[in-house]
Parts: sequence; structure tokens; C-alpha cells
Amino acid sequence: MEKNQYSIFESELAVRPDDIDMFNHVHNSKYLDYVLAARYEQMDKHYGMSWEKFTELGYGWVVTKVSIHFKRPLLMGDAMLIKTGILEMSEKGCTVQFEITNKKTGKIASDGTFEYTMIDLHTKRACKVTDEMIKAYSI
Amino acid sequence: MEKNQYSIFESELAVRPDDIDMFNHVHNSKYLDYVLAARYEQMDKHYGMSWEKFTELGYGWVVTKVSIHFKRPLLMGDAMLIKTGILEMSEKGCTVQFEITNKKTGKIASDGTFEYTMIDLHTKRACKVTDEMIKAYSI
Amino acid sequence: MEKNQYSIFESELAVRPDDIDMFNHVHNSKYLDYVLAARYEQMDKHYGMSWEKFTELGYGWVVTKVSIHFKRPLLMGDAMLIKTGILEMSEKGCTVQFEITNKKTGKIASDGTFEYTMIDLHTKRACKVTDEMIKAYSI
Amino acid sequence: MEKNQYSIFESELAVRPDDIDMFNHVHNSKYLDYVLAARYEQMDKHYGMSWEKFTELGYGWVVTKVSIHFKRPLLMGDAMLIKTGILEMSEKGCTVQFEITNKKTGKIASDGTFEYTMIDLHTKRACKVTDEMIKAYSI
Repeated sequence: MEKNQYSIFESELAVRPDDIDMFNHVHNSKYLDYVLAARYEQMDKHYGMSWEKFTELGYGWVVTKVSIHFKRPLLMGDAMLIKTGILEMSEKGCTVQFEITNKKTGKIASDGTFEYTMIDLHTKRACKVTDEMIKAYSI
Repeated sequence: MEKNQYSIFESELAVRPDDIDMFNHVHNSKYLDYVLAARYEQMDKHYGMSWEKFTELGYGWVVTKVSIHFKRPLLMGDAMLIKTGILEMSEKGCTVQFEITNKKTGKIASDGTFEYTMIDLHTKRACKVTDEMIKAYSI
Repeated sequence: MEKNQYSIFESELAVRPDDIDMFNHVHNSKYLDYVLAARYEQMDKHYGMSWEKFTELGYGWVVTKVSIHFKRPLLMGDAMLIKTGILEMSEKGCTVQFEITNKKTGKIASDGTFEYTMIDLHTKRACKVTDEMIKAYSI
Repeated sequence: MEKNQYSIFESELAVRPDDIDMFNHVHNSKYLDYVLAARYEQMDKHYGMSWEKFTELGYGWVVTKVSIHFKRPLLMGDAMLIKTGILEMSEKGCTVQFEITNKKTGKIASDGTFEYTMIDLHTKRACKVTDEMIKAYSI
């Protein structure tokens, strides 16, 4: 992962049997769900401004772009470490890098980037990220 | 849950954000996946005859009937305890009872029963559960 | 399916590749999603009171009980016919029977019943089904 | 979409209610499943060398990279057109471009690219795409 001024946080997650597909490995689209699960946990635990806090304020984060590389398949029974960190954050949104490592082998299963925009939950339209939010996430 | 001669085991699981549906609670079909995740863990941890062991032997467990009661919704961020225990086990298969409790409130989110049949992974047809397997699971 | 005073409607749906699990057949919990998809279509097409209409009025239908029998697996590439019909409808909610048939073989893949309660989308609590709604669905 | 020497094919698909997430629009990872569903259909219908044919030969296609842009959300009840076409095909695999259009509005919901590698289903390792396969897909 790229080292920069932003912190990198780590979450742990286990493959759920319903994530397995016809190839007997984790289905490709589930990796996006794993990254969401990690960010969700880290928003609360590390940034001190949880998903629920944004919801209360009337905001939500939606994904606008994903670039993902599937390197080594995760299998039934595997556990993973999911590192994520901010690459860029501005009033327009933020870009997050991630890396999913197989806990057993220590090898990278998948990595890539997510771009997020903040939306107003009522209008469902993109809106500006406030200075306070940028500050909370600039750690 | 019904108390009988079989042990009851407990697993812990967290709601994953992708489990949430249009009502902002866990989607109904995901509860079946939670029970599968709990059984998968307990097969290895408590019965000493894991899912993978069955796979190696050329067998798999498939669900033939589910009866499930949705009592109180699980929400984003919730953690749950999933208790399961055998109600009946024979060469024809087994019936498992389950109860999912919201960890925060201690209240039952869902309960019910699953009936399983063992299949031969090559023929994909139902087959007899052996005495050895019944013994391993009769704890 | 049980014949009674209520109509039985049919929807067609194709298995989606992401529905396939480690056994190379449709994952058990996906059948619940198929029934939801069929009811969603039929609410609009046959009852003339769509899901969206309920949403506009501030109501939603949530599942309280499912009893489902998995008879024959659906496979990658299969198409299915999903018949559903009301078994009971009152101000407390309704019970719906369903039957999923493999289009290729004409054989039943799964059948069972769903019990639904209507909730107020704001309070998220169960509420009474109005006479007008019962009438719309009593065809 | 980029015009090149390869054909562009189109599939139609409807949003399934279980695809909807906490924002009341289609969950981001489901778009990857939609592209898979379209390719699956088109492999059989247009290339004359179906997914099942590859399976019989002992091969499967797995995704190695996805780049996806989420432009406008798909909602409950929406239908979509999914165009896909090959950008590059060699013995190492292929790159496919896609574009998902909302059938109602005619506007692009999502676009991007998928990179695939062919694996041997027994060894689960990448293997060479044969000339015959490349020829079948070079239309």
C-alpha cells in the first residue's frame, strides 16, 4: 500500500460460507463487500465519526469508482486482514486504498482503490464534505 | 430452544453492511446464511468433524427444509449470538434448531429449524450418514 | 399448490450466476429472494397495488415466517416459473404460498409459505392492513 | 463504449429486490454480478461456446481485475441493458468492456472493464487460452 500522510487501519473478517461461488472460492463481488465492512468498522473505531453519525446528520457515502485486482483466491474457512487508508480527501469526496491479506498465508488476496462521494440522504444527490468531516478523517 | 440429549453450541457473528436491505435492516434471506456460518464453525470447533473433512470424504450437507421465524430485526452494526443444536440425527440426515440473539439487547432476533441431507459430491444424490458420523455428532 | 378463493399468479426468472454456491447449484437462501422477486412483480402486475404504492403510502411488507422445502436443485443456466397465491389475508397480514418449478424439467424445485406483516416505514412497527388493501389483494 | 474489431452484444436484466441496499438503490457490488450474468448469456447465445462448454472441457473464467464507474444509481423496479464487448483477447486471457444502461431513462448507470484469466478447474491455476477459443471469441 502507498504510504502517505494518512493512517492505515486494519480490520479482520472471516469468509462466510455463502460468499463461496461455483469455483469453490470467494465470489469476486464479495471483495467489495469486505472492503465496505472494513471501512464501516474503521469509521467508528478509528476516525471517531461513524457511519451512523453521518446517517444522523443526513449523509451517506456512496461508491463512484472501484479499481480492484484479484490476486489470489480466498477459500472457504479463510480469515483475512483488510487494511485501508485514505489516499485523497477533499470537499468532493475521498479515495481509499485497500489491501486484503489472507491471514493464513500472509499473502495478498486483493488490492485496489475505492472512490467515494458523500450524498444527502434526502435528495440522494452528491454534496460537499465539510471541513469538520475532512478534519476527522485527516489522521 | 428445546433442551434434549444433544449439545447446544454458540457462535458470534457481526452483521455485514451488505446484508442490509431497503428497510435498513438485515435482509430476511441472510439469516439462513448466518445459520450456515454458525454450523460451519461449530462442525470444526465442537464436533471435530469439519465441513472440509466431509468434503475430503466426498460428502456435503445440503438443506432440504427450513422453518424460520423472524422476530426482531437486526440492524446495521449489530452483533449476534447464534446457538444451534441437533434435534434429530439418523442415517437419513439431521434436523438442527437455531436461535439468533441480538448481542446488544439479548433478545431473540430469529429462531427455527433446518433439515439437512448428506449428498455424495460426485453423484449429487442423497446418501446414508454413516455410524461414525452420527457418533461424532451425537454429543 | 392449494386451490382456494385467491388467484395464483406466475412469474418467470432466470438463475443468476452469482446465485450458485459451493455445490454448483443455487444457494438455499436465494430461493427466498426469488419468491420476493415474484411477489414484487405480481403486486404491480396483477394486484394493481404495487410495492412502490405501499412505499408512497408509508408502508412496507416484511417477512415474519418462512417455511420452505428444497426439493430439487436449480442449476447454473436454469430458468424457473414462480407461482404464488394468497392463503390468508387479514388486517394482521397475509400468508402466501409459493411453488418454484424448473422450466426445463417441469419439476418442482421448491415450495412453501411466507407470512408477511405490514410495517409503518417511519416507526418500523407492525400496523393494520386497511380494508382497501385487503380488497385489492382479495382477487 | 470503445468501437473496435470485436462485436458488442446486449443482454437485458431486471433489478431483483434483494439487490437493493440501505440507500434504497442497487448495492455497488451487484453491478459486477450483472456483468457476469450478461457475459454468461452472451457466451452461449453469441459466441457459440458457452460457459458450460468450458466447464466440460475442464476450464473456467475468473476475474483478475475490475475497473468500474458507478454513474447513476439503479433503483428497485428498474430494468437495464448490459452491453459487453471484447477489448483484447490473447492466450493469456481477455479484457471485456461493459456499459449498463437504465432501460427507462436510456442513461448510463455504470461502465468499466473486466479482465479475465482462464483457469484449469482441477489445478485451479491459470492456463493458456487455445487458438480455437480465441477464434470463437474473435467475432
